[in-house]
Amino acid sequence: MQIPSSIPELRLALRNRGRVVLVPTMGNLHAGHIALMKEARVHGDTVVATIFVNRLQFGPSDDFDRYPRTFTEDCERLSGAGVDLLLAPTETELYPEPQTYQVDPPAIQNQLDGEFRPGHFRGVATVVLKLFNIVQPQAALFGKKDYQQLLVLRNMTRQLALPIDVIGGETVRADDGLALSSRNSYLSAAERAEAPRLQRILRRIAAAVLAGASDFTQLERQASEELDQHGWQTDYVAIRLQADLQVPSHPAAGPLVVLAASRLGSARLIDNVEINPKKGPLTGGN
Amino acid sequence: MQIPSSIPELRLALRNRGRVVLVPTMGNLHAGHIALMKEARVHGDTVVATIFVNRLQFGPSDDFDRYPRTFTEDCERLSGAGVDLLLAPTETELYPEPQTYQVDPPAIQNQLDGEFRPGHFRGVATVVLKLFNIVQPQAALFGKKDYQQLLVLRNMTRQLALPIDVIGGETVRADDGLALSSRNSYLSAAERAEAPRLQRILRRIAAAVLAGASDFTQLERQASEELDQHGWQTDYVAIRLQADLQVPSHPAAGPLVVLAASRLGSARLIDNVEINPKKGPLTGGN
Repeated sequence: MQIPSSIPELRLALRNRGRVVLVPTMGNLHAGHIALMKEARVHGDTVVATIFVNRLQFGPSDDFDRYPRTFTEDCERLSGAGVDLLLAPTETELYPEPQTYQVDPPAIQNQLDGEFRPGHFRGVATVVLKLFNIVQPQAALFGKKDYQQLLVLRNMTRQLALPIDVIGGETVRADDGLALSSRNSYLSAAERAEAPRLQRILRRIAAAVLAGASDFTQLERQASEELDQHGWQTDYVAIRLQADLQVPSHPAAGPLVVLAASRLGSARLIDNVEINPKKGPLTGGN
Repeated sequence: MQIPSSIPELRLALRNRGRVVLVPTMGNLHAGHIALMKEARVHGDTVVATIFVNRLQFGPSDDFDRYPRTFTEDCERLSGAGVDLLLAPTETELYPEPQTYQVDPPAIQNQLDGEFRPGHFRGVATVVLKLFNIVQPQAALFGKKDYQQLLVLRNMTRQLALPIDVIGGETVRADDGLALSSRNSYLSAAERAEAPRLQRILRRIAAAVLAGASDFTQLERQASEELDQHGWQTDYVAIRLQADLQVPSHPAAGPLVVLAASRLGSARLIDNVEINPKKGPLTGGN
């Protein structure tokens, strides 16, 4: 794996590389990231990973300073996953001056996670646009655990006419169902044992909706209360349309997803479960 | 000259074209545009022009509807100027859905022309970013008559890490000094005879500053009053730093430019003159 030491060096190294696939990360890589790297390989000739903890997407009370940095181990894992090129720019290189030109996403940036993280999606959109402009890939992969982020980036890419396929990678989970996340490292042993409740509740809501439950507000409130009774502080549990993450006008308005964010100890965990009707045996498995 | 009928066709036509230079326009081309096309040829292998009257950069009381459209004549002139490819997308093609992801420029977007045209520079930045993403040129040319626009686009390009050289083309003027502009066509014969006053006043200010005048506020106010006494309605006359269009902290703070916007009849005209000390004979011409 090549690790160009600057953006111009990366650009040089990318010449005549065929179809380039980008996987942006903030480092501290786990099996979820590695699955993205391996899927990236399927979509192109050259896989480029980036590691950059993007201050722009962290609020003043967010965990920018304590976000885990594990560069040496990350390089090992990326190399083992067959990544061709890694760009890990410094803040000075990516933001040599205050970033005063930013991407301004629409109202979705202030909903769901955006309601609790003002400026977050603006910061995400801006840094990803910069990385797109630096790497100029033909495709880019983002994990579906950050479901709203994937939607924002997919819509940004389409609306700004970027010739890039934005691909969502499936969430990778621990054996007990907890979605892998760098922020799981903030959990104590007791909190770690409690943490899978989040996805259990989301799966239960999905099953209830598939079984015909239609009072979404009640399902959301009950889930939130159950979490809080077990020591969580819940920001939201929300049943939304997969297409645009808006509130469905009626229970059959389109494919749904249930999303949640809740704080457990010093970790703020997010997760989601798509509510897709199981296909019958004649149309293949789900 | 090829005129691809769609964005995908343009992208196909641009394969293996060497260094691509883009010149975005709103059509109704005059000698100023043609000078940009000819300069573009010097900077690359393939010259791409675009014609698109961008609704996003017009305010509700602006002249979007009456902005002159002269597509057939424009094609003739572009072809004659050696342009290789012309993209003239429809609104539906460039904005197939409401443009809710936009570039948000910093405070400069609300100063000078931006004070009188709210949202204008946001609309300009957004459409140019889209055209950059569609054409993916190595260089792009914009006229210096739209001095603030050039600054916004140059800063946007640098801050978003786009690998594009943004080049300013000199203003082309009629024999009497009036800067060429599509909006000159709104002038009556009497107004057209009056119009060169704008640049005469700007040149006079430049000469005064070069001669040591240091009360910039007085120069600006006198110029504005003189215009208004001759039937203009002046939005601003401003002596600013070339580098960032901010008010100079003192008369020698850096290279200056004097900019103005004023309405004459139904036309809103803008112009500017850079205030550059003449170089001596030993260092070449000015």
